[in-house]
Amino acid sequence: GDAKAGRKSAIACQTCHGLDGVSKLPEAPNLSGQVEPYLVKALTEYRDGGRRNEIMNVVAKPLSDGEIADLAAYYASIQVDVLPPG
Amino acid sequence: GDAKAGRKSAIACQTCHGLDGVSKLPEAPNLSGQVEPYLVKALTEYRDGGRRNEIMNVVAKPLSDGEIADLAAYYASIQVDVLPPG
Repeated sequence: GDAKAGRKSAIACQTCHGLDGVSKLPEAPNLSGQVEPYLVKALTEYRDGGRRNEIMNVVAKPLSDGEIADLAAYYASIQVDVLPPG
Repeated sequence: GDAKAGRKSAIACQTCHGLDGVSKLPEAPNLSGQVEPYLVKALTEYRDGGRRNEIMNVVAKPLSDGEIADLAAYYASIQVDVLPPG
């Protein structure tokens, strides 16, 4: 996927997930630095209905495979540092 | 949920998700610092079958609501710094 193109499409995601992938709602997961193939799978399942969520099934519906790949590449590309748990 | 108790239960999650919540497999999402209510929902749906995944449906099956709350509290408690995308 093309992260730069994904960033443009991510305008549609930012109300819930943030443009930096940091969730703005308790129901919405963080997406920053998320595993890219996992994001592709999640969006594809939301689009095709195998995974159910009222909002995501609607917003994912019009996405092409290419747009899904771009969005996944964008959110996966955001760098995250994990502080090892005590 | 009790993050300390969750850390003990997370031994069962670490092969795929890491004890620090950093994924070890392309199919497994990162869990570090993930939104706590989202994690509770995901695990509950995996346990109850509303969300389908061969591995997660099996490993979530025996979890009580309390164990789910503890696991969610543990992974949510891991601190993550997000570097704003360029």
